[in-house]
Amino acid sequence: MDQELQNKLKKEAGIKAAQYVKDGMVVGLGTGSTVRYLVDELGRRWQEEGLRFTGVTTSRRTTAQAESYGIKIVDIDDVDHMDLTIDGADEVDKNFNGIKGGGAALLWEKIVATNSRHYIWIVDHSKQVDTIGKFPLPVEVIPFGVGHVIKQFEAKGYKPVLRLDKEGKPVLTDENDYVVDLHLERIDNPEALAADLINTVGVVEHGLFLNMVDEVIVGNEGEPLVLTNPNK
Amino acid sequence: MDQELQNKLKKEAGIKAAQYVKDGMVVGLGTGSTVRYLVDELGRRWQEEGLRFTGVTTSRRTTAQAESYGIKIVDIDDVDHMDLTIDGADEVDKNFNGIKGGGAALLWEKIVATNSRHYIWIVDHSKQVDTIGKFPLPVEVIPFGVGHVIKQFEAKGYKPVLRLDKEGKPVLTDENDYVVDLHLERIDNPEALAADLINTVGVVEHGLFLNMVDEVIVGNEGEPLVLTNPNK
Repeated sequence: MDQELQNKLKKEAGIKAAQYVKDGMVVGLGTGSTVRYLVDELGRRWQEEGLRFTGVTTSRRTTAQAESYGIKIVDIDDVDHMDLTIDGADEVDKNFNGIKGGGAALLWEKIVATNSRHYIWIVDHSKQVDTIGKFPLPVEVIPFGVGHVIKQFEAKGYKPVLRLDKEGKPVLTDENDYVVDLHLERIDNPEALAADLINTVGVVEHGLFLNMVDEVIVGNEGEPLVLTNPNK
Repeated sequence: MDQELQNKLKKEAGIKAAQYVKDGMVVGLGTGSTVRYLVDELGRRWQEEGLRFTGVTTSRRTTAQAESYGIKIVDIDDVDHMDLTIDGADEVDKNFNGIKGGGAALLWEKIVATNSRHYIWIVDHSKQVDTIGKFPLPVEVIPFGVGHVIKQFEAKGYKPVLRLDKEGKPVLTDENDYVVDLHLERIDNPEALAADLINTVGVVEHGLFLNMVDEVIVGNEGEPLVLTNPNK
């Protein structure tokens, strides 16, 4: 899929998802290229339609973009829960299991998602896969002793790569942790992998979001497709 | 037990544990009031006996104390593993399950312990208990959304209290996380509690150290007692 088409599909998914936001809601706003289109549309509705809601964001980037439209953003601890959270995803399979964290914001994203009554992903159709894992799985790791965690992952065949920026320095999350990407190619048992990762001392969180999402809005040629998770 | 006697027993346990350190070892050094006596004794041996080893510490405090004696301290990622780690504990039961983290250094302590070939605790005998849990269990939590984690803990009856400093501000760990202490009074099933805590989104690590320790050196009236874990 060429970049222009992909951006068009992301934009259509973002615009569709913005319709789920109603006056007075507390709305969690994710992070990433598809969410940018969502926030643009919410900003348009805020300014042109007078839509009013309270936002909680999963990254400083999204806060800056939302506030540039005048959207009211509060701290997650200033609200009791999110009525709705909309976020992107890097891969999603037919069981509504997915990978997130390409944008290094997975920890805040998972915290916001966990405290949301309704949770929606917006993706273009290239993110739909039979088996997750081709997208490298991000794992957020404490800098102290990261080399030992990487060695453990190597011994298990997880093919870990410490994520570096353009200058060759470790990428830092908003929590000043490192990101280790696991190049697994395919994840046949995501529940077992999730359990192993979260029990690894030094791991803060990982990018497996298993059966958490209620709806996936897929940007398609034609109308965006809305997939509803039957197990939620 | 009065404070003076308790300090004497801590000191005796620390001096006893220092005998386990041999020339050329890589030694993990914990944190806390009992470990201070250990480091004092290692400093004495370094200066008077010419003992030479490489230290890895679990807090900036211990690094400062060790370096004041000239002890060589390196980063955990500069060594392949620790030959031996010696640390304190806040409680320990007969199954060699314990609680650590009173000093807010539990995360680095657990990372160092996990990468150690041999692991020793030094305690005075007041730390020996039938059932752990009277000592409030420290849980290291991401500041983002901490209020939601506390609410989840309250709903489960975990009696969480955010740890504050003398000025009423949240205590920060070396990783800039918060500490939530769970006032459980008794923990009948530590494995189940550990699994629940580590699977709570926002929790980085907790102070349950279950069947990790090889030996516990207990400061007693008379000679310190050395308890060896039969399950290791």
